[in-house]
Amino acid sequence: MAAEPPTALDVYRARARLRGRVAHTPLLPAPRLAQLSGAEQVLLKLETLQPSGSFKLRGATNALLCLDADALQRGVVTASTGNHGRAVAWAARAAGVACTVCLSSLVPEHKAQAVRDRGAAVVRAGSDQNAAVTEALRLASEHGLGYIPPFDHPDVIAGQGTLGLELLEDATELDTLLIPLSGGGLLAGVALAAKTINPALHIVGVSPERGAAMIASLAAKHPVDVPEEPTLADSLGGGIGLDNRYTFALAQQLLDDVVQVSEAEIARAMRDLYCHERLVTEGAAAVGAAVLARGGVPGGGRRVATIITGNNVDMEHFTRIVNGESVE
Amino acid sequence: MAAEPPTALDVYRARARLRGRVAHTPLLPAPRLAQLSGAEQVLLKLETLQPSGSFKLRGATNALLCLDADALQRGVVTASTGNHGRAVAWAARAAGVACTVCLSSLVPEHKAQAVRDRGAAVVRAGSDQNAAVTEALRLASEHGLGYIPPFDHPDVIAGQGTLGLELLEDATELDTLLIPLSGGGLLAGVALAAKTINPALHIVGVSPERGAAMIASLAAKHPVDVPEEPTLADSLGGGIGLDNRYTFALAQQLLDDVVQVSEAEIARAMRDLYCHERLVTEGAAAVGAAVLARGGVPGGGRRVATIITGNNVDMEHFTRIVNGESVE
Repeated sequence: MAAEPPTALDVYRARARLRGRVAHTPLLPAPRLAQLSGAEQVLLKLETLQPSGSFKLRGATNALLCLDADALQRGVVTASTGNHGRAVAWAARAAGVACTVCLSSLVPEHKAQAVRDRGAAVVRAGSDQNAAVTEALRLASEHGLGYIPPFDHPDVIAGQGTLGLELLEDATELDTLLIPLSGGGLLAGVALAAKTINPALHIVGVSPERGAAMIASLAAKHPVDVPEEPTLADSLGGGIGLDNRYTFALAQQLLDDVVQVSEAEIARAMRDLYCHERLVTEGAAAVGAAVLARGGVPGGGRRVATIITGNNVDMEHFTRIVNGESVE
Repeated sequence: MAAEPPTALDVYRARARLRGRVAHTPLLPAPRLAQLSGAEQVLLKLETLQPSGSFKLRGATNALLCLDADALQRGVVTASTGNHGRAVAWAARAAGVACTVCLSSLVPEHKAQAVRDRGAAVVRAGSDQNAAVTEALRLASEHGLGYIPPFDHPDVIAGQGTLGLELLEDATELDTLLIPLSGGGLLAGVALAAKTINPALHIVGVSPERGAAMIASLAAKHPVDVPEEPTLADSLGGGIGLDNRYTFALAQQLLDDVVQVSEAEIARAMRDLYCHERLVTEGAAAVGAAVLARGGVPGGGRRVATIITGNNVDMEHFTRIVNGESVE
C-alpha cells in the first residue's frame, strides 16, 4: 500500500528524530540584498553548514531512520553522486548502517572516491543515471536493502520540512520565502511546515530557465518531462518523475509563485554572495539571491528569506566563476 | 578608579546583555583537519557568521551597552577600520547610538566608506593609527562620548568570553582549544569562560611568526613591544600596549601553550579551508587550522576546536591567495 502524503505532524516527528543528528543552521542577515530588493530585511538560511554540505542530510537521515530494523541491519542503497548521495553516505555512517551507492560509468572517479571516503561502497552500474537507479532498486529488492529516494517520498519530504520549522521559529515575522525548486522535495517539506506556522507566508519557487520540470508541470497541471540542459544550478537539474506521487500535488497546493533565473543571473549571484557575504555556494543555492538582485521582492514582502541550499561545487570551477572567467 | 579585572560572572552577565544582539554561532565539523592532526574530532567555531563578520561584535556590543545612559545619548567613538571598527559601527547602529570612527590619512577611502555605510561618521585625524586613537580619546573627553577600546578592557573581554560559554556548552567533551592570539582580548575572555566550565581544557594561543607581541611579552614576563611586520594575519598585528592592564595578566594565568605559524602555513590553511570546508577566512582566522595541518595536536588532545574569527579580507587578494598566486 502506498504511504500517505506527509503532514505537518510528520515534520514535527522528523524533527524529534533528527535532534542531534543534523545541524540547526543559522540565519545570516544580508543587508546588501535588502538594499537591492527594497526589502526591510533579507535572511540567508545557511544549509551549507550541514556536515554533508547541503540540506539533503535532513531528508536522507529521516528516511534512513524510518526504515524497519531489518532493513537497517542489512544496509541502505541509493544512486546519486550529488548532494543526495553524499547526504545518504553521511547519514548511514552516522547511524552505523552499511551504505551502497550505485554510479553509472559517466561518473568520474574522483566523485566515486568522495563517496568511498565517507565509508560507502560504490557499485558501478550501467552507462547512465537511469541504469544506476535501476541497479540500486534491484539491489534493494534482492538483498532487502533500504532504498533512499532523492525527493518524492514522505519521509524525505518530512525531513526537509524541519528546515521550515527552524526558519519560521527563528524568523517569526517573515513575509516571503524564496526556495530553490527542482524535484520539489525541499519546497514541499518547507512549505508544509512554514504554512502550518504562518499560512499567510508568500512562498516562491525559484528554478533556472534551463530544464525547470516542476514549473512546466505546474503549467501543464500534470507531471511533464522537459529536456535536460546543462546549468550552473546543476543540483536543480533532473525531472520530477512522470509517476510523481507527492511533491507535485504539494507544490500545486502550497506554492504561491514561481520565478526563473538565467545562467548569467546565477553566475552573478554566486559572485556577489562570495564577494559580499563571503559565502561559497553552488549555483542552485544562489537562485533566490539572483531573484532579489533584480530589484524587487515577488509578492512585495518586506521581510524575506532564501535558502542557501548547498556548497558542493568544484572549487576550480567556482573560482573561475567568481573571477568572471566563465558562466558555464 | 580602575575597573576590576573581569570574572566568569561578568561573562555570564555579558551573555544576558547580548541575547538577541549577537549570533550564537555554529560549530562546523572538519573531518579533514581531524585526519591531518590525528584528532578524533575537530570543530570550527564560525564567528564569520556574526553580522559584522567577526567575533569583535561581542565585545563591542557589551562595552557599548555597559556605558552610562548619558554617554550613550551622546554617542560612541573608536579608531579602527578593522574588525573592531566594523563591530562598533554595527553595535552602535543596532542600539540606535551615534558612532564616530577616527581614521588616519593612511586609511584608503573605500574602507572609510564601508564605515559610513554602516551609519557611522568618519573623522580624518593625523597621519597614523596612534594619531587617530589620540583624536578618538580627545573627542571622547571633550564631548563626553563613550570610547570603545579594542581589547584591553573588562567589558570587551567579558563580551568576547560569551564565545567561550557557547563553545564549551555546545562541545562539552572538548580537550583542546586553539585561539588566534594578538592583543589577548579574545583569548582572555574565552579562556576565562571555558576554564570555568572545564578547568582541564588545554588552551593554546596561536600567533603568526611575524610581530607576536603577546608571545614576546609572556616570554619577557612583562609587556614588550615588537617590531610590526606585514602578515597575512593582519588582524593579529599591533602590540598589547606597554601599559596593558588586563589581557596580559589573564593570558599569563590561563594560557597553557603558545604556537607560531609562518606566512606560508597561513596561506595554505586559508586555501585548504576554502577548497575543503568552503569557508572564506581572513588570515588571522586560519592560524588554528595551520597548526593542525602540521600533523598533531599541541598537548595531544583528541577533541579539538579552533575559532574562525573573521572574514574581513579583500576578496581580490583572497582569490589570489587561494589560487596560490601570492602569499603576501
